[in-house]
Amino acid sequence: MNFADLETPALILDPDRLAANAKRMRDHCAAKGVTLRPHVKTPKSVDVAKVATDGRMSTITVSTVAEAEYFAKAGFDDILYAVGIVPNKFARLARIGAETGKTIVLTLDSLDMAKAVAASGLDNPVVIEVDCGEHRGGLAPGDPVVAEIAAVLGAQLAGVMTHGGQSYACDKPEDVKKIARDEVTAAVTVADQIRAAGGAVRIVSVGSTPTVQLADSLDGVTEVRAGIYLLYDLSQYSRNICVLEDIAVSVLASVIGHNRNAGVMTLDSGGLALSKDLGANAYMPEAKYGLVCDAETLEPLNACVNIVHQEHGTVKVSDPALFDRLPVGSLVRVLPNHACMTVAGGYGKYHLTDGRIWNRIDGW
Amino acid sequence: MNFADLETPALILDPDRLAANAKRMRDHCAAKGVTLRPHVKTPKSVDVAKVATDGRMSTITVSTVAEAEYFAKAGFDDILYAVGIVPNKFARLARIGAETGKTIVLTLDSLDMAKAVAASGLDNPVVIEVDCGEHRGGLAPGDPVVAEIAAVLGAQLAGVMTHGGQSYACDKPEDVKKIARDEVTAAVTVADQIRAAGGAVRIVSVGSTPTVQLADSLDGVTEVRAGIYLLYDLSQYSRNICVLEDIAVSVLASVIGHNRNAGVMTLDSGGLALSKDLGANAYMPEAKYGLVCDAETLEPLNACVNIVHQEHGTVKVSDPALFDRLPVGSLVRVLPNHACMTVAGGYGKYHLTDGRIWNRIDGW
Repeated sequence: MNFADLETPALILDPDRLAANAKRMRDHCAAKGVTLRPHVKTPKSVDVAKVATDGRMSTITVSTVAEAEYFAKAGFDDILYAVGIVPNKFARLARIGAETGKTIVLTLDSLDMAKAVAASGLDNPVVIEVDCGEHRGGLAPGDPVVAEIAAVLGAQLAGVMTHGGQSYACDKPEDVKKIARDEVTAAVTVADQIRAAGGAVRIVSVGSTPTVQLADSLDGVTEVRAGIYLLYDLSQYSRNICVLEDIAVSVLASVIGHNRNAGVMTLDSGGLALSKDLGANAYMPEAKYGLVCDAETLEPLNACVNIVHQEHGTVKVSDPALFDRLPVGSLVRVLPNHACMTVAGGYGKYHLTDGRIWNRIDGW
Repeated sequence: MNFADLETPALILDPDRLAANAKRMRDHCAAKGVTLRPHVKTPKSVDVAKVATDGRMSTITVSTVAEAEYFAKAGFDDILYAVGIVPNKFARLARIGAETGKTIVLTLDSLDMAKAVAASGLDNPVVIEVDCGEHRGGLAPGDPVVAEIAAVLGAQLAGVMTHGGQSYACDKPEDVKKIARDEVTAAVTVADQIRAAGGAVRIVSVGSTPTVQLADSLDGVTEVRAGIYLLYDLSQYSRNICVLEDIAVSVLASVIGHNRNAGVMTLDSGGLALSKDLGANAYMPEAKYGLVCDAETLEPLNACVNIVHQEHGTVKVSDPALFDRLPVGSLVRVLPNHACMTVAGGYGKYHLTDGRIWNRIDGW
């Protein structure tokens, strides 16, 4: 594809990198003997999800009802909506189920919501969320309310899920491995509670890209969830979870101004095009809002987007030769700090490096 | 409107607060004797822009070509695209002009882009961007290239614009007033350079909400640009530019989980629904990713969204009574840290507190 034919900012996806990332994770999970349930909140694209599932179009994770609807209508089945369910979403979920016939698995961690689901008429399978140390949602392993939820939901209860999201803060393999063990222990403990209460457990779901990649043992687990491995980004790179050449998405931006007095150049990609996420910076301070790279080769140009406003990205220029290399009107590509947030900037589509266009959704 | 009828997260707009904010700024500019050119990159909504312009549907500012197209097709005229123009946007701008007949004013700060515009066949008016101290885009006042640009563009050159965006970092009126003076001085200096080069100047444009509100003198200025005054947010509140009761937008969120062990509750509004902007926090550390308020009254509940993940917002609960007040499934409203970023989260529409729905656009 000829990047000069695109209006900027544009979201660029390298399908070869995507395919390699997807295959590597599939092979890894096959070797571990667990089902891979890709979290497609990262790409939010049917086409990317087809690559992730190798065409099976089943067993995926989503984080919004809009994603559940989009993927179900596109033919995907066995969709885990991995965010705590509340009643204002029941009616739409019922409609999606009725219209598509696809299965959407719900997540909850309270007796109140178990009762609400049971009373709703929804027949969706349910998993109990477990807190394995992230301290976001989830019941503590051993919480006696598990048995009460099992009693309320009966056969509708399909299992448990947990998310070791604290792994994203680590850069040492031994720290991630410890969190991977915590995920397994927490999930298996609650699965055993359900069994002890007379329930059947067919889903024991754990995961985050780092813990899935580094877990030593997944005994007792039936499936793993991971999403960012499809695209990767500087956050994962900074934590040694991928190499720079694995990052499959970038933002094509134009240089829209030189301010030699201030020692900066400006791009037409700011806080909306790149996001304001700074997750990489704990281990990679030079990441800032994204690494500025050659548009054609993705070679890093020893510059980053230091400041973002809504539509402006300001690049500090340490070597004045960069002004000559990148005249006003020229193109760069920016590697994202946190790809999940960057690709959700409102692009509506991916431009593939081979010229294809893949759609994506945003919103709720 | 009954908030319980909405799926969360949802973007809520109070039309009375919006109308009052819009009128106050119009009255202020009328008293100052300058034209108000509202920056509709903040609301990105035709309906909001009609309120901002009191129905005139003219003389607005935008920050993307997509906004220019959306507003021109809706009948708005005299649209300043206030981000440096580059050639990959010429073709679409030409199409918009041909299809709508509306005027889109372009911005540039280099001789290269002036030559590119002159050679393009585009007949759009052009303003030169001036750097008044923000050190983002813009020529320094006095830069001799101004005369060269004037010579290249001839009658196509309509004037100058500058943006004292550094005002957003201040919380003291005297600091903002100084920046307002810098804006005027910089813009008038370059306007005079154009006149000295034989050009006519009909646009001398300055602004940011803080500098427009606090400027002592706007002598030599023809118009001011401001946007966030329409909606306001915690960033403006923290800098004493508005009161809390002026903030016209909020995010309706559901409590999706209680984690009493960890002392947190979770909302279904995270980094995409609220944005990851922390601009308010320099002067209001307790703002974090947004203030948690009663859904009906907007009374602050002494809690904020402390941590955001893509779709989860984690609220630290300092008083356990909040768990009883806000059971799982209940609603809150979150006042945004930075409204421009929050409302661009992918909502697609505003739900007005009187039940109406107004559309908005995102993307490029």
